[in-house]
Amino acid sequence: MNDHKVFELGNLRLQCGMILPKAQLTYQAYGKLAADKSNVVLYPTSYGAQHMDTEWLIRPGGILDPERYFIVIPNMFGNGLSSSPSNIAEPYGMARFPAFSHWDNVQAQRRLLAEVFGVERLALVYGWSMGAQQALHWAAIFPDQVDNICAVCGSARTSPHNKVFLEGVRATLTADPAWQNGGFTARPVRGLRAMGRLYAGWAMSQAFYREGKHLELGFASLEDYLVRVWEANFLRRDGDDLLSMLATWYQSDISDNEIYQGDLAAALGAIKARAIIMPSRTDLYFTPEDSGAESVQMPNAVFRPIESIWGHRAGNPTDNTDDEAFLRNAVQALLTGGA
Amino acid sequence: MNDHKVFELGNLRLQCGMILPKAQLTYQAYGKLAADKSNVVLYPTSYGAQHMDTEWLIRPGGILDPERYFIVIPNMFGNGLSSSPSNIAEPYGMARFPAFSHWDNVQAQRRLLAEVFGVERLALVYGWSMGAQQALHWAAIFPDQVDNICAVCGSARTSPHNKVFLEGVRATLTADPAWQNGGFTARPVRGLRAMGRLYAGWAMSQAFYREGKHLELGFASLEDYLVRVWEANFLRRDGDDLLSMLATWYQSDISDNEIYQGDLAAALGAIKARAIIMPSRTDLYFTPEDSGAESVQMPNAVFRPIESIWGHRAGNPTDNTDDEAFLRNAVQALLTGGA
Repeated sequence: MNDHKVFELGNLRLQCGMILPKAQLTYQAYGKLAADKSNVVLYPTSYGAQHMDTEWLIRPGGILDPERYFIVIPNMFGNGLSSSPSNIAEPYGMARFPAFSHWDNVQAQRRLLAEVFGVERLALVYGWSMGAQQALHWAAIFPDQVDNICAVCGSARTSPHNKVFLEGVRATLTADPAWQNGGFTARPVRGLRAMGRLYAGWAMSQAFYREGKHLELGFASLEDYLVRVWEANFLRRDGDDLLSMLATWYQSDISDNEIYQGDLAAALGAIKARAIIMPSRTDLYFTPEDSGAESVQMPNAVFRPIESIWGHRAGNPTDNTDDEAFLRNAVQALLTGGA
Repeated sequence: MNDHKVFELGNLRLQCGMILPKAQLTYQAYGKLAADKSNVVLYPTSYGAQHMDTEWLIRPGGILDPERYFIVIPNMFGNGLSSSPSNIAEPYGMARFPAFSHWDNVQAQRRLLAEVFGVERLALVYGWSMGAQQALHWAAIFPDQVDNICAVCGSARTSPHNKVFLEGVRATLTADPAWQNGGFTARPVRGLRAMGRLYAGWAMSQAFYREGKHLELGFASLEDYLVRVWEANFLRRDGDDLLSMLATWYQSDISDNEIYQGDLAAALGAIKARAIIMPSRTDLYFTPEDSGAESVQMPNAVFRPIESIWGHRAGNPTDNTDDEAFLRNAVQALLTGGA
């Protein structure tokens, strides 16, 4: 499914005060838009992912059902399909790419929906990880346009420990020999592989490895799993793209904008959407404690942890039907008013 | 207190089948050996630590009291004081240093105690982290020579997730530009700094950062803490030394030897010492679940988690008097027979 579309944003003024020239938002749509436009689901992408990586959950009877809903996946800035360090013209190529925030991501997505589809109201914003950050930004920044959100393994504001985790990831990727004077001079293969190995410890829980789930998946050994899943996952991507999205993640805060001026409680309190907040019980960087503390400040939120040993990937269960069913049931409950 | 001594081991046959030429075990002793030699405490070192780093807990009224006990800190192979990649003559310098195990560490320590002090029996082996691994090796390999062990934030066999954590650390350090053809060609400053930042996320818990403990300690910001504590901690050390000890940690298994032939249950079951097994409730790589599963297989073990948000450092509480008191009480209970 590579027949994606490109929405031209023109010269886009970013929250950081820079202009992103000829900005592009690349997206894919699934299903049919209802005549009354009441069946729109927005499904933003996660860190390092492109819509081809995440669309597996869109299928009849799946978590997001294209027979009932019109589902749009907007590719996040920096992911290599929408405007990114790896695909933009100079003077903003590579490490010179201007900083973008989730404010910028959701403002661009709103324009896409309004200008291309005439859509002003969303039945659901669904997201995992950085996608959940975007879902929460939507609900806080456009409270009158979002009926429901499902925020899986994400947060409204990146927690201090989550930032330390990201510091380690960034330091590892930029330990690569190709990192010179604040930019990559070549493809950072060593750093990308190291980043994958590092991520393997953070993304999956202690219990996942204790119970040998990586072997149950068919991998011959721990090393086989580390190379074929985790090194491979980051080797697909561009180093500058990964750093740009990492900065967005690090700074993510639904209140860091002109509306809320840094008042997180006000931003959470302004969310009108019905919400299901679904951390994984064993997520090591988006912890259930952090999500719980945020959800009690949201007027219409239900806190529903995924009781899973799949760590952060409990929310992205490509190999894990128990967690998939749990997510599907949550979405159905939201969309049928029974959350 | 740098008046440490050197015990010459001669040409030491290692478990891996190699000879470590003119091997040295560097140690420091505190307090007085009783006439009946009944007051000996062995306190092996942890990852990257030298006896100067760990002796803070030896003081009158402290966790280990030198007015009552004769305390010996043996420096682990690879720590830069005992034989290590950074201090050995060719052909075994740097990355060519032969692999050593905790079997090798404890065998060398036993010779030190017997040949220098005439000591055959230990009142206590106390250790944190890799020190706890050595305490458990002592109890399993020399069951008739150890009365008590206190194993803090360690394990008898390195868990699968702990290995994944170590894979990330190793990949980060060796992402450094100086890593070429399986060895360092220069001091890996970038890799050591990255390793420090990475470690900061693993060693301290999510709650530690959530509650701002790093700021309570007097650091001006998260970045100040990352640089002055964590980058500084690893910049003190040699890259090859760190890799050599990391390999020992990775392979650590009290049953991986000629006695137990890989049968961990047999090794745990053979431990006669009274033991207190003290993981930290919030340790992210030596988890309480793993320690609990091991402790129930030890005939005379008490499982006593440290209820702390200091993560792995709950067991090394230089700044944390609550956890220090908990550890001191455990040691006193063991040594007075009241555990």
